[in-house]
Amino acid sequence: MAKKDTDQDQSLMTLGVDLGGTKILAAVVDQNGRILGAVKHKTRAERGVDEVIARIAKSASDAVDEAHLEMSMIQAVGIGAPGVADPNTGVLEFAPNLPDWTNIPLGPRLQQMLGVPVLVENDVNAGTYGEATAGVARGYRSVVGIFPGTGIGGGIVLDGRLWRGARNAAAEIGHMVVLIDGPVCGCGRRGCIEALASRTAIERDIFGEIRGGRSSIITELADPESGLITSGDLAQALQEQDPVVTDVLERAAYHLGIFTGSLVNVLDPECVVYGGGLIEACGSFLMPIIRKTTYRYLIRPVSPDKLPILEAALGDNATVIGCAMLASAERLGHGA
Amino acid sequence: MAKKDTDQDQSLMTLGVDLGGTKILAAVVDQNGRILGAVKHKTRAERGVDEVIARIAKSASDAVDEAHLEMSMIQAVGIGAPGVADPNTGVLEFAPNLPDWTNIPLGPRLQQMLGVPVLVENDVNAGTYGEATAGVARGYRSVVGIFPGTGIGGGIVLDGRLWRGARNAAAEIGHMVVLIDGPVCGCGRRGCIEALASRTAIERDIFGEIRGGRSSIITELADPESGLITSGDLAQALQEQDPVVTDVLERAAYHLGIFTGSLVNVLDPECVVYGGGLIEACGSFLMPIIRKTTYRYLIRPVSPDKLPILEAALGDNATVIGCAMLASAERLGHGA
Repeated sequence: MAKKDTDQDQSLMTLGVDLGGTKILAAVVDQNGRILGAVKHKTRAERGVDEVIARIAKSASDAVDEAHLEMSMIQAVGIGAPGVADPNTGVLEFAPNLPDWTNIPLGPRLQQMLGVPVLVENDVNAGTYGEATAGVARGYRSVVGIFPGTGIGGGIVLDGRLWRGARNAAAEIGHMVVLIDGPVCGCGRRGCIEALASRTAIERDIFGEIRGGRSSIITELADPESGLITSGDLAQALQEQDPVVTDVLERAAYHLGIFTGSLVNVLDPECVVYGGGLIEACGSFLMPIIRKTTYRYLIRPVSPDKLPILEAALGDNATVIGCAMLASAERLGHGA
Repeated sequence: MAKKDTDQDQSLMTLGVDLGGTKILAAVVDQNGRILGAVKHKTRAERGVDEVIARIAKSASDAVDEAHLEMSMIQAVGIGAPGVADPNTGVLEFAPNLPDWTNIPLGPRLQQMLGVPVLVENDVNAGTYGEATAGVARGYRSVVGIFPGTGIGGGIVLDGRLWRGARNAAAEIGHMVVLIDGPVCGCGRRGCIEALASRTAIERDIFGEIRGGRSSIITELADPESGLITSGDLAQALQEQDPVVTDVLERAAYHLGIFTGSLVNVLDPECVVYGGGLIEACGSFLMPIIRKTTYRYLIRPVSPDKLPILEAALGDNATVIGCAMLASAERLGHGA
């Protein structure tokens, strides 16, 4: 009996929520980062802030129900949001994919609705923290997370703690300039790594090659109306050894490698984690080039085993798990 | 009397040593970072490791004497070395400007000679820490230090503590690549900021312009034999409105600004400190361009007062003061 009581004391349950532009993912997570129950709902951002907050609360309850628990057994909630969050106040200051979400006191409002302490964090920061505490980088104290997709997001964990910066604006690694006066970035500046190696940049370069006269299978694979090339399209084109897609991805990986070398030269982490849609789809092609180039660009050379460059393990669950682990560590003083 | 005793308890004295390739600077520093006594001796690196270590010990004693104190009143010693130091073991692993200095247990050996705890740290890290604790950035908890000179050195202070990285290799900011496949760097790679905006790169570009047919007063100012252009030469050429030097420095400052923006996007510090020979000589020309460009490249815009970009205040004393403050904070558990 005594043993059992101790186990129960230790079985700290927290809840993570990944608030996305199109879907809400909620999961109950134990102290080892295992998901005990999870649900997915549509965000329905068009219905406005109040409705979305209500849907977050419902997702939370449903996840608790899925885990065969009750909300009173949940110690804290972590919410990962696609924007700038202040973890001290729980205010979501700005979220580019959620129109009208400016300075929303998301934390306090949910805390009142759920009766549980709530932490609000940037989703990519949370995802990096998830990989660092319960994913592929578990056991490493200092981790840089790099997530190429539509843009390039990042997260930085130093000495076991998320580094948010002085204004919660750290880890905007997508806007490190790697090619001064290079191609225009979505941010309006030039030469950011995001303008060279995000899925958007890759799309632009592939269509550029095609306009330049080269032919590519991508014209059959990509949606002709939207002109969107998905990461899945890229993977298929790679498999069919399409020369245009191969060239463009090779160059993007080379750029990512140099960029990763720069990040390591500045931060000297114990390991680097690469994740996100582009890596999930095309990692087997991209990662060897990224690794080789990174090691070549380190000013203090190390053997790869001393600085592993890993592929993320948690996939779409990185943010929910990271949020839950972060809420446990920071709201409750457990963990790290 | 009781008051006086308390004052004496609080008047913590530490000693900083800046071990350079040509000179050794030693200073007794109080807990506020004020120098109470200092000496300068030649390094005489050509005489070998043992002799240099003896000269460091002598410099330390002389500085203590200059401060009208005795070594028994010194609580700890910090040594800033121009290379890779492991502060945990006190081993100087590698120092490019000190031949034969590979894996020298500098800390333990001096600790034995002086009878005082000794900390060994990279000189630029120490200089940044000095500016952050007793210089222009005093009061700021998170500081990035950028020191353009022959190369471009840097230091990172986060939440009041020096960030050394997982292998004491952090803050090698000079080897952040800002122009992929750009000019060759001293490190053998291409496009590092050091290859674009160090004094060495500026020298190369000025002579390139002259070889290209432009005329510059620098041909009269620079040492014709060595071909070396000092920071002082640059300052004088600026004053005489030399068009070549003005153009090259303008471009270097633009590059430094973009690079600084990238660093801020990654680290989000409270302030940035620029120091070193090039800034001391040409800061009034360079800093406005650096500042303007940096703010333009921030992905999360801030007003300049929220993220000041400051000129270093401690000059050649930054490393001795920083070492002493660091020894106080880390060896004795005081400070930060």
